[in-house]
Amino acid sequence: MAQLKKVGFQGERGSFSEVAARTLVGENVQPVPFETFADVFEAVEAGRVTAGVIPIENSLVGSVHINYDLLLEHDLHITGETQIPIVHCLIATPETRFRQITEVYSHPVALDQCRSFFRKNRAIKPVSYYDTAGAVKMLTGSKLTSAAAIAGPLAAEIYDMNVLKRAIQDEKANFTRFLLLRKKPISPRVGAKTSIVFSVKDEPGILFKVLSVFALRDINLMKIESRPVRRKTWQYHFYLDFEGSLKDDVVRNALAHLDEISRFIRILGSYPISTFPDQ
Amino acid sequence: MAQLKKVGFQGERGSFSEVAARTLVGENVQPVPFETFADVFEAVEAGRVTAGVIPIENSLVGSVHINYDLLLEHDLHITGETQIPIVHCLIATPETRFRQITEVYSHPVALDQCRSFFRKNRAIKPVSYYDTAGAVKMLTGSKLTSAAAIAGPLAAEIYDMNVLKRAIQDEKANFTRFLLLRKKPISPRVGAKTSIVFSVKDEPGILFKVLSVFALRDINLMKIESRPVRRKTWQYHFYLDFEGSLKDDVVRNALAHLDEISRFIRILGSYPISTFPDQ
Repeated sequence: MAQLKKVGFQGERGSFSEVAARTLVGENVQPVPFETFADVFEAVEAGRVTAGVIPIENSLVGSVHINYDLLLEHDLHITGETQIPIVHCLIATPETRFRQITEVYSHPVALDQCRSFFRKNRAIKPVSYYDTAGAVKMLTGSKLTSAAAIAGPLAAEIYDMNVLKRAIQDEKANFTRFLLLRKKPISPRVGAKTSIVFSVKDEPGILFKVLSVFALRDINLMKIESRPVRRKTWQYHFYLDFEGSLKDDVVRNALAHLDEISRFIRILGSYPISTFPDQ
Repeated sequence: MAQLKKVGFQGERGSFSEVAARTLVGENVQPVPFETFADVFEAVEAGRVTAGVIPIENSLVGSVHINYDLLLEHDLHITGETQIPIVHCLIATPETRFRQITEVYSHPVALDQCRSFFRKNRAIKPVSYYDTAGAVKMLTGSKLTSAAAIAGPLAAEIYDMNVLKRAIQDEKANFTRFLLLRKKPISPRVGAKTSIVFSVKDEPGILFKVLSVFALRDINLMKIESRPVRRKTWQYHFYLDFEGSLKDDVVRNALAHLDEISRFIRILGSYPISTFPDQ
């Protein structure tokens, strides 16, 4: 049997991050749950886990900004990405019947994504909990037949619980993009994407000049995100995702050019672009 | 006496938003607190208040993304902006002495911005509350001498409470930028800034083309922000702030040019740029 790879993620066993870890690393994953995203970064840096998996962006809610900040603070490399469909299920103990339920526990973002379910079922009250899979875990073995949780199907499987309703989220197309983090970078040759973070000198038209670096070389930009620079009021770090690998001359030339006009630049990693959807 | 202008904001009386409302509208403000940001937008739209004031960006934490989404959903106009220094004070009833305090209530973001205070005072426990000024209000008239709140100095003034310590936040330079919203746009002539939101066709180099529209006309970009488009997975709305007014020919030409290459474009408003700092 292949050796298990320890992969860290935030949240309880059965979370969407665990689904992402299995998609990115394969079935020989040993999932290691952590309380915070910062804990995941630290565990990878310290070598206590082989890799970490973090959510970076949800197609409805937007970027997970704290993870952009943590990418900057920690010296890790992005080595993969995947997009996981977020399917919210109503999960309860096997003894629980739907009509008995009066309270549903989940993370506030998940509850907010199932508003039409609560409108249709007025007798059921949403209750905030710190984690989706954590809410399922909490109900496990309880004798409660008036409570349920909202989480992904893997949580029901892991805790031997019952899926009473599937896909109760308002918007059926709901995806979260996750990143795989390791201590060492990889260098994919084709079908790659590269992520960088940089800050620029404060001069007119500088962002245009930055994008010219890529446009003049026909490099396709995939995402731009900005975050405040600490201790520099109203200055920003920009995060860019673009097509291509550090193996490509054109990408290396573009980054050398960008370096000429940046205050600071760091390469977060080149990794295979996820085909859509992964599952 | 001048007639009072009703100005809506989110949070309790004495919040930083109320400080911003007074800075933007003047002392003849009648502050009208609302529970949510969406309530503020709706009250301005319905004419129940003359104007609304919302936070859009903090220099440490970043953008208030929900307010970007609400700007798109509601048909209001930005008519002003201001930057308020965030000074976190330890506030308690006049009877409370510092050494008696064992619990401090505030909004989680405010508590998180005062970490060094809690590290230095290990006997004092931070307790999450829904609002900074709301925590002060809650303590008002209570007989508690073991509790305090973290909020701005205006909250102490409004609720006749005592400031025990001033500026206990970790980073002394901490500013929040607020926007003034009205039903009708204004057209400032000089020293103006314009905010727009747009989405682009999905083609390579499109963001570069968009920024060219401004760079080729020497229009200085001040901020770019992106948010997901609902029901269009991995598409984005871009929010741009740039120098200049809709009164300027060059700005109108740039927007006409942008319209040629955009899927959608809306002008959120032209308004005077706030000088830094306002207070």
